[in-house]
Amino acid sequence: MHGPPGGEELVESLGSGKFLFSLVISYTETCEIPGITAAGAAPELFQYTPPADAEFLHYGRCRSIDGIPMTPDGKPTPALLTKAALESASIPHVVIGAGSKVPPMMPYMETGLHWGGNITQGPAMARDDLLRAIDYGRIIGRTLSSLTDCLVIGESIPGGTTTALGVLRGLGRKARVSSSMPENPVELKEHVVENALRRGVSEDPFSVAASLGDPMIPVVAGMASGACGSSKVLLAGGTQMAAVLALGEKLGIGGGVAVATTSYVVDDESADLVESVGAAGVPVISVDPLLSKSKEPGLRAFSEGFAKEGAGAGGAITAAMLKTGTGPREFLPLAEDEYRRVLSAQ
Amino acid sequence: MHGPPGGEELVESLGSGKFLFSLVISYTETCEIPGITAAGAAPELFQYTPPADAEFLHYGRCRSIDGIPMTPDGKPTPALLTKAALESASIPHVVIGAGSKVPPMMPYMETGLHWGGNITQGPAMARDDLLRAIDYGRIIGRTLSSLTDCLVIGESIPGGTTTALGVLRGLGRKARVSSSMPENPVELKEHVVENALRRGVSEDPFSVAASLGDPMIPVVAGMASGACGSSKVLLAGGTQMAAVLALGEKLGIGGGVAVATTSYVVDDESADLVESVGAAGVPVISVDPLLSKSKEPGLRAFSEGFAKEGAGAGGAITAAMLKTGTGPREFLPLAEDEYRRVLSAQ
Repeated sequence: MHGPPGGEELVESLGSGKFLFSLVISYTETCEIPGITAAGAAPELFQYTPPADAEFLHYGRCRSIDGIPMTPDGKPTPALLTKAALESASIPHVVIGAGSKVPPMMPYMETGLHWGGNITQGPAMARDDLLRAIDYGRIIGRTLSSLTDCLVIGESIPGGTTTALGVLRGLGRKARVSSSMPENPVELKEHVVENALRRGVSEDPFSVAASLGDPMIPVVAGMASGACGSSKVLLAGGTQMAAVLALGEKLGIGGGVAVATTSYVVDDESADLVESVGAAGVPVISVDPLLSKSKEPGLRAFSEGFAKEGAGAGGAITAAMLKTGTGPREFLPLAEDEYRRVLSAQ
Repeated sequence: MHGPPGGEELVESLGSGKFLFSLVISYTETCEIPGITAAGAAPELFQYTPPADAEFLHYGRCRSIDGIPMTPDGKPTPALLTKAALESASIPHVVIGAGSKVPPMMPYMETGLHWGGNITQGPAMARDDLLRAIDYGRIIGRTLSSLTDCLVIGESIPGGTTTALGVLRGLGRKARVSSSMPENPVELKEHVVENALRRGVSEDPFSVAASLGDPMIPVVAGMASGACGSSKVLLAGGTQMAAVLALGEKLGIGGGVAVATTSYVVDDESADLVESVGAAGVPVISVDPLLSKSKEPGLRAFSEGFAKEGAGAGGAITAAMLKTGTGPREFLPLAEDEYRRVLSAQ
């Protein structure tokens, strides 16, 4: 537990409750800047990672691509951890399309949003579309929170930490963001955001988020704002959720909200998640899934800085442990089983 | 309560439970045959009726059209009754796009299905698409039923009773179907279906439903089949639900399922809902919303044979009464308030 108070009570209140996991899939052309992301085996595959993550969660295999989403050097998607966690605790899931370039081959909640533009070349989206993203997010959040005790919100968007940095910087925050690569390309991200900032920064936070962000950020901010009145909310992600909360401050995201993520993000010295999230008055729950102790090199990689988090893995593991009253020791063999199942199916 | 046993126990078991209402919106070009439907003020507006019904449920006003869906002579959409019922009992709702020609201007669950073809001109849909519709329906049904005690499934598809008749006839049933008009154009519907049957009827029920039906039917059949294992299911509709159940027999729709509709459909002498639904072993719950006693001519019209049912009105009223422990006497003033609110907003 890190940051402002409230985390302990929130965790205690969730022990016997019902959870619903939602995965918000999106796309930003910013990920096409060489070296920005490793969320796909090759640049032309980045657009398939979000729908493939969604399909993997549901079917246990992808339909939009062969195999599962990988980094260029063959590290698997963290959706593998998400799936192992949700399945172990029978937590239902829904997928939300928030400007995914490729629709998932399964039923999902559609918002009709276009994907985000490359922020070095122009605004990510029109301000009107950002407002619609927030509005539709609010509707989704209200509906889903009425059906559960705790809404867990994860995301899958390649290049999303760079657009998160854009929103944080545009709103005047000093935050540093994490990465899906062990060597965080901090300088490249800062350079991209500096370039984007040169287009001029409005005083209006909605214009800032429309200009420098991506469609996932306003949809998740809207969802959290719409949900927090009637259920608890776990924002399942790393530093991207700091950007969600920075925008969310303008929307009245109240109590009963925490960020839940892996210890690999919280411990990332190139980032400052707890400070960024704490600035919004929100606690951070971090979980160490003990992957450093795994016999499987593909799982150990997460603990060595690859991916670290994604597809809501940290929040899903937290929710599963709370629901089943178990801990990381019980989770590790489940993750290993899932990893071997996926490998043997390749 | 009508038809096979099971209805009483189902109603009793629902008294203190949670309800979730789902509206499946779709389209069939069959509705473009002159005289087949009154689900829209003019033929070019039929395609907007399903999304407009969905928007009305959510926002209390439509966004895809001015005003609300009307018959050509100005009778309002039964979604008005659905909304009054859901709101009075704080029952949440989700919208499911199952081949709607026009997407609703709100978040909704997307299946990626194309709308249905005119069954006099060719198959409504490819058999593969029908199987996908069932599969996606099953996924949606499983997810939604895990979040509630009773999933209520309504539909909005202009021309849907004719395609329902097509599926029933194609499967060898003698059923007669109801209509949104007081003078049911029975001969025209039978003529349309006879024409469609001339294309030849397969022995395979999936091919029959693909050839003679519409995309709503397999999606709802899949939803009911996916849901009935973990929650109760109310099929909120008239004779179209008989077609859903005829297809659903092949999918293992089990216990805990009932059709819930208005007494106006059950009492329609040109149709035989109780017999058609009873053939699938499913009871019919009918509710008389006492609209014949309303001071508002637009509401009395429902009791005089206009619309009769639609947008899941009968099932929504049933669910609201069960949840709040009230009856038709309490519902009537709510419907009148909603009617006046809509009229004054025009």
